[in-house]
Amino acid sequence: MTALGDRGPVVVVGGGPAGALLAILLARHGHHVDVYESRPDLRRADIGSGRSINLALATRGIAALDAIDVMDRVEEITIPMRGRMVHLDDGATNFQPYGLHDSDIVHSVSRNALNAILLDAAEETGRISLHFEMRCRSVDFDASTARFTNAFDQIVDVGFGTIFGADGANSPVRGSMLQVNGGRFREDVLEHGYRELTIPANPDGSHRLDPHALHIWPAGGFMVIALPNPAGDFTATIFLPHTSNDGPSFASLETRDEVESFFAEHFADFAPLVPDLVDDFFDGPVGDMSTIHVQGWSWADQAVLVGDAAHGIVPFHGQGMNAAMESGLVLDQHIRDRPLDLAAAFAAYEAGRRPDADAIGDMALQNYIEMRSDVVDPDYLLKRELSLELEKRHPDRFAARYGMVMFHTMGYAEAETRARRQSRVLDQLTARARSIDDIDWDLAGALVSILDPLP
Amino acid sequence: MTALGDRGPVVVVGGGPAGALLAILLARHGHHVDVYESRPDLRRADIGSGRSINLALATRGIAALDAIDVMDRVEEITIPMRGRMVHLDDGATNFQPYGLHDSDIVHSVSRNALNAILLDAAEETGRISLHFEMRCRSVDFDASTARFTNAFDQIVDVGFGTIFGADGANSPVRGSMLQVNGGRFREDVLEHGYRELTIPANPDGSHRLDPHALHIWPAGGFMVIALPNPAGDFTATIFLPHTSNDGPSFASLETRDEVESFFAEHFADFAPLVPDLVDDFFDGPVGDMSTIHVQGWSWADQAVLVGDAAHGIVPFHGQGMNAAMESGLVLDQHIRDRPLDLAAAFAAYEAGRRPDADAIGDMALQNYIEMRSDVVDPDYLLKRELSLELEKRHPDRFAARYGMVMFHTMGYAEAETRARRQSRVLDQLTARARSIDDIDWDLAGALVSILDPLP
Repeated sequence: MTALGDRGPVVVVGGGPAGALLAILLARHGHHVDVYESRPDLRRADIGSGRSINLALATRGIAALDAIDVMDRVEEITIPMRGRMVHLDDGATNFQPYGLHDSDIVHSVSRNALNAILLDAAEETGRISLHFEMRCRSVDFDASTARFTNAFDQIVDVGFGTIFGADGANSPVRGSMLQVNGGRFREDVLEHGYRELTIPANPDGSHRLDPHALHIWPAGGFMVIALPNPAGDFTATIFLPHTSNDGPSFASLETRDEVESFFAEHFADFAPLVPDLVDDFFDGPVGDMSTIHVQGWSWADQAVLVGDAAHGIVPFHGQGMNAAMESGLVLDQHIRDRPLDLAAAFAAYEAGRRPDADAIGDMALQNYIEMRSDVVDPDYLLKRELSLELEKRHPDRFAARYGMVMFHTMGYAEAETRARRQSRVLDQLTARARSIDDIDWDLAGALVSILDPLP
Repeated sequence: MTALGDRGPVVVVGGGPAGALLAILLARHGHHVDVYESRPDLRRADIGSGRSINLALATRGIAALDAIDVMDRVEEITIPMRGRMVHLDDGATNFQPYGLHDSDIVHSVSRNALNAILLDAAEETGRISLHFEMRCRSVDFDASTARFTNAFDQIVDVGFGTIFGADGANSPVRGSMLQVNGGRFREDVLEHGYRELTIPANPDGSHRLDPHALHIWPAGGFMVIALPNPAGDFTATIFLPHTSNDGPSFASLETRDEVESFFAEHFADFAPLVPDLVDDFFDGPVGDMSTIHVQGWSWADQAVLVGDAAHGIVPFHGQGMNAAMESGLVLDQHIRDRPLDLAAAFAAYEAGRRPDADAIGDMALQNYIEMRSDVVDPDYLLKRELSLELEKRHPDRFAARYGMVMFHTMGYAEAETRARRQSRVLDQLTARARSIDDIDWDLAGALVSILDPLP
């Protein structure tokens, strides 16, 4: 019925990584694109001296950035992490590489620095106008207008032909759309929250820990992690239940003494890395995490959601931004596949992509348990070793679960189902062996042959 | 944007099993439905004394007939077939049951008798008007009119809001739609054709062969099959290459002598069952078979295809009508899932259903080889026996391929992928065993445990 641009202006709400990338993809169809972002331009505004929020950039995100030709610029601001550095109770460390190959790398990247590159690239197209400090309030689909408030809190109504909601987990576009399209929304709030802490650089500017690893201090029911920044510091995050009846929680850490003794007890080798640990701990509110499930990602040829607005996930797999940018790429491909029928393209996008969004939502939750406790469990470690060995012996059929999510571009749902089958292979083999030396490799070969060939 | 009926009249083109069933499903949304059928009303017209065309009705078709509450009537006209009766060269027979369970039955049913029940049921809704001898010529989507020619060859233009193309493999609705929706069409014509023959009843009205079986006379590169009719006769079909350089073909059977000696050589025990075999053979043209692939099953909220119009397949799995009726059910469910957005429902229907259509198209082609040659191959027979034994031992994870298509309602694509994995299990086990008695059942259990649990 309608192609992109037929109904009128192409509007993207949200100028974060998902929105900026999508705008560039849409501009390549030959249309002018208006991007409305609620915050000030992070390239110009003073964003303060606070800690840098960094994210894990992996293959899916890189594929999206490659598609808009900015990876050369992004590479300059990333730090490669080759595996997990697990910090054990006794102060020892156990390095667990992410994969077998040199390319099995996760890149630590500053969200703001990446966003700045994408905003620059958007402006360079000559087809994208960025409008900052425009906070979306609601969308009127009958009138085809979106209501914003500007920096002076004045109401501004903007006409659109098609509106793309890249406006995050609390998406106002989604809020208005679900009132007309009969869709459903569910937010599963995690019972755990997080606080960020900073491990500063050494006086000479070097990193205080190996910068080419993601550091984990697992503590069973909770954990601390740290990702490197190019300036020599690490952004650390403590994940902990909001409240608990039988263990530490943010609610139980109200005084300076409580915080100090908590870190001394559970994170003795981490605590010395953060000067002013207690002040840092109390700086700012406890963050919430949730998984957002939406059914009804689009409304006719008028609106469609991408990124957290459609599928917000918890951060434990480091896939939130990767998934958001990959969704932009998938949506763009559907528009190219059905160039004359935008409504059908949007519906097909949801039909194809929602199972993947559900899968990464699940796997992100599972990965919290893996990071905070499994990484020191002997059964897990044997299966991890076996998994990498099977990948080495049968690269055509077996790929370790983590790698399928991080270093492949197969659909997340496929990665999840493959992982489930593979874990049955691992179960069969480890039920008959106490160490990697006892594995029956003939049986392993037969079992692996049942798995589907990798794409 | 629009719900069913919002744009205007609901029109179904085609009053065969797929169209009649779909009309009933659509009428249940509360709308009046007009059905246009090119042929005369088969319940009233003299359809001649020609042979009855019968079809295989299995679980998917039954599920659709159940959904419109006509199975009690349909049951009265079906003959249960419990397996394949394979007629060997030496005149012996080998009965191969379709499955392990009493309910693993395929029903032989007359296409016309089934269609008559569906047309009656359509009229009984009080919401469906049937228009016979109205041949669709083309559809004008700008004007929202469909052009028909009536019995007097006069042009009749009919306005529609939404048009459903259940108009068969040569679908005129599809022809017009693909000109506007940018879709693609491919017809893979099989190099083999078919002719129908009749095995009459015994003088006392009884069947000349076991009526509770589908009879096969496999001949390697070609075959004869026969399905029972309630009147005591069988409709037999010979499948043969149209032309061939190195074997028999319809082109090589031009004279009475050639036909007689061909049957004497290849189907010595079948030939005596058909009196006037040669006359019967030459009665009517050789039939063509093809697989129809369509990308772009719908156009906005205006048109959508079901059945052969969207996914014509070859007859060797006995699934053509089952798939057509199941597609009606699937489409109806998508309309119910997105009641306010018909265009999105249509797009989601294609996105979800096309992989299944592709899968049954593939499997129907494969089944020709299975029927005409594998059914007498020792390796195939061992795997078939093993497959049923594994289904018996591991009913939660293993289901013989044929049964997944015929006696389950899981998506065809899922059935095909499961079958592929299962065949690797069979390969592993039979590579280590010469008969069912040599099978390593421990290994079998380990291999089967890798398969996904059945739904």
